Amino acid sequence: MLQSLSFSKTRRAITEEAESVNHKLLVKGGFVSQLMAGTYTYLPLGLRVIKKIENIIREEMVSLGAEELIMPALHPKDNWVRTGRWETMDDLFKFTSYYSKNEYALGPTHEEIVVPLAEQFIFSYKDLPKKVFQIQEKFRDEKRAKSGILRSREFLMKDLYSFHIDEKDLDDFYEKVVCSYNRIFDKVGIGDKTYLTFASGGTFSKYSHEFQTETPAGEDIIYLCEKCGLAINKEILDEQNICPECSNKSLKEIKAVEVGNIFKQKTKFAEAFDFNVKDKDGKDRFVVTGAYGIGLGRLMGTIVEVNYDGKGIIWPKEVAPFQIHIVPIGKKALSEGNRLYKQLKNYEVLLDDRDESAGVKLNDADLIGIPIRIVISDKLIQDDNLEIKMRHEDSSQIIRKENLLELIAENV
Amino acid sequence: MLQSLSFSKTRRAITEEAESVNHKLLVKGGFVSQLMAGTYTYLPLGLRVIKKIENIIREEMVSLGAEELIMPALHPKDNWVRTGRWETMDDLFKFTSYYSKNEYALGPTHEEIVVPLAEQFIFSYKDLPKKVFQIQEKFRDEKRAKSGILRSREFLMKDLYSFHIDEKDLDDFYEKVVCSYNRIFDKVGIGDKTYLTFASGGTFSKYSHEFQTETPAGEDIIYLCEKCGLAINKEILDEQNICPECSNKSLKEIKAVEVGNIFKQKTKFAEAFDFNVKDKDGKDRFVVTGAYGIGLGRLMGTIVEVNYDGKGIIWPKEVAPFQIHIVPIGKKALSEGNRLYKQLKNYEVLLDDRDESAGVKLNDADLIGIPIRIVISDKLIQDDNLEIKMRHEDSSQIIRKENLLELIAENV
Repeated sequence: MLQSLSFSKTRRAITEEAESVNHKLLVKGGFVSQLMAGTYTYLPLGLRVIKKIENIIREEMVSLGAEELIMPALHPKDNWVRTGRWETMDDLFKFTSYYSKNEYALGPTHEEIVVPLAEQFIFSYKDLPKKVFQIQEKFRDEKRAKSGILRSREFLMKDLYSFHIDEKDLDDFYEKVVCSYNRIFDKVGIGDKTYLTFASGGTFSKYSHEFQTETPAGEDIIYLCEKCGLAINKEILDEQNICPECSNKSLKEIKAVEVGNIFKQKTKFAEAFDFNVKDKDGKDRFVVTGAYGIGLGRLMGTIVEVNYDGKGIIWPKEVAPFQIHIVPIGKKALSEGNRLYKQLKNYEVLLDDRDESAGVKLNDADLIGIPIRIVISDKLIQDDNLEIKMRHEDSSQIIRKENLLELIAENV
Repeated sequence: MLQSLSFSKTRRAITEEAESVNHKLLVKGGFVSQLMAGTYTYLPLGLRVIKKIENIIREEMVSLGAEELIMPALHPKDNWVRTGRWETMDDLFKFTSYYSKNEYALGPTHEEIVVPLAEQFIFSYKDLPKKVFQIQEKFRDEKRAKSGILRSREFLMKDLYSFHIDEKDLDDFYEKVVCSYNRIFDKVGIGDKTYLTFASGGTFSKYSHEFQTETPAGEDIIYLCEKCGLAINKEILDEQNICPECSNKSLKEIKAVEVGNIFKQKTKFAEAFDFNVKDKDGKDRFVVTGAYGIGLGRLMGTIVEVNYDGKGIIWPKEVAPFQIHIVPIGKKALSEGNRLYKQLKNYEVLLDDRDESAGVKLNDADLIGIPIRIVISDKLIQDDNLEIKMRHEDSSQIIRKENLLELIAENV
């Protein structure tokens, strides 16, 4: 697309309190705009990244045999009373309709909705297993929204729910989700800094798992066992700081924002809604459930936290808003830029056709962080040359124009 | 996909109060499930229809030069106080955070957010015009939610906002949106029953326009001038029932759900937020804005209201959840069905591999309403024949197996 036409712009100075790297870079780069603490608009550039992340996640969910649906954000009080969480979940937004006087919650998660929904369609062991997911806005009355888009009051989340006849079937599926999550975090470029971490399960079970990514903006402390590689959330580590897996005492403390969580809920929610099915012997038994979340905004923020330098964001290519950034400097360069833009029409290309100085254009390009940058100057054109700079590399290279397509094909 | 694996099922009897055709058919067919009055889950089958509608709309928005973004649903009170609508918009959900004691609104529309957002990036006539749109959940504290998904408390909406230097530029763009909306309503199969209707502009301007679709479930009364073809909302017709365009007195009264609306807001919102830009002469002037909405759920409900028969829904092919429904009856037929399913892998195919009677399968197929149905029975296979039934036609035809691909290519 043409940069001159884009709705948003990079911003030199930002007035909002930007306490974290992801917040500062995403606001300055024109990816998001803060409406109020914990509430963000995803600007066109940011939405492109979100859609890339969304598609990577969706593909994995479909591979797991899950079907997509969308549940409402507006929930009736009754469902939350049934599970006891109307009183116990302290970040639940609750309010009353002016007209109907009905009390509602804004969904921070959807067990209270998906379990009675599944009950409408699942009657027997023959109907199991089933898996559904949605990519949908969640709401949390956060005590203190912070860390940019890492902890928001409103956020886009992928939540997957699975229904099984017994714990064995849940365990098998749970393992598949772990592999699927690992593939997702690899694809979006944070795989090598993301750890499957033992955590307390809260209301669900003794242990749950979190996927934690090492970053200085992290709000959690986790411990890595330097012997067996296990990652452990601080809250479940006993006082002696011993690895529960191999009893090693050498644990490395790191800061890490949770990017995903997976829970074996067993029959907790089925019991709350009296959701049982006939098993093979015709006996009633409670359905066993699991829930698996990934926050898309939080993931986007985390990607930035682990992929940036002093000049701006370095998007991993799988989630970059564009594949190629053409930056012409000078008038002749612009017409060559337009020609290249047409030639590269099968790629996702941003053309900086703005009437700005070389300094502004190059600084903006670094800030926005598109993986491949093609710089065109009047001088370079004269010699039939172009300058190519990969955002993740330190130096650029001058290449012959005729070698461009081959080089791009190798690098996108 | 395989029907036996699908999360939702058709439902013979529905317990919820279903007062309209779209509600009854969409719930029975397994497209939506009512959570409470005015709040629906879009089940996998329904979400497939929504995504088709979404893509048709998105394509048109991009053709208009609009960029996609997503704004939050959670709005700060201040923005609504600025425009006066905190007090005057009576279906605004308002509530207070337990922690921050901040007051919020849940967005029923986004002028209060998009105008100050645009103010961050638009400073001069050189930055105009700009257009942005989103496809996002809206909330309304409806006095009485009714008519199935036609009038909901939470609903997916496409809202487009445009920013201009003067009214002339707004007028030009407004005309383009009218053409674009007509193309959308044509594509989704309600074009011939949808009228551009003169309406009162509420807070915005003397006249606005609504796109009204003729249906017995309609909540509005509109008048069609039988002479000049103008459609007029009841509320702006004077007491003499005369067409304001040609003074004809022969007006036909019809019931019609508004499926889209377009507003010239002029400088109303720019003034509320003191949003002005420098014009060519360096003088400050207020930005001129327009807003253009289409409710996706409402559109889906309307499509059903005008495309059904006694047996179920008749999806127009552009928005059908699948292109082809394979219905094998009998064991041999199922294996032939599986073979066909693989052969047709480049189409969107639903295979009814359930162990159900012919009656159940054919009734469900009629109810779900996929455009092309292929019936396979053991008897038909014996003679190398298949039965093809187009959902919108009354009779089926027996064809030779070898002619199937050609027939499908002609009809999808």
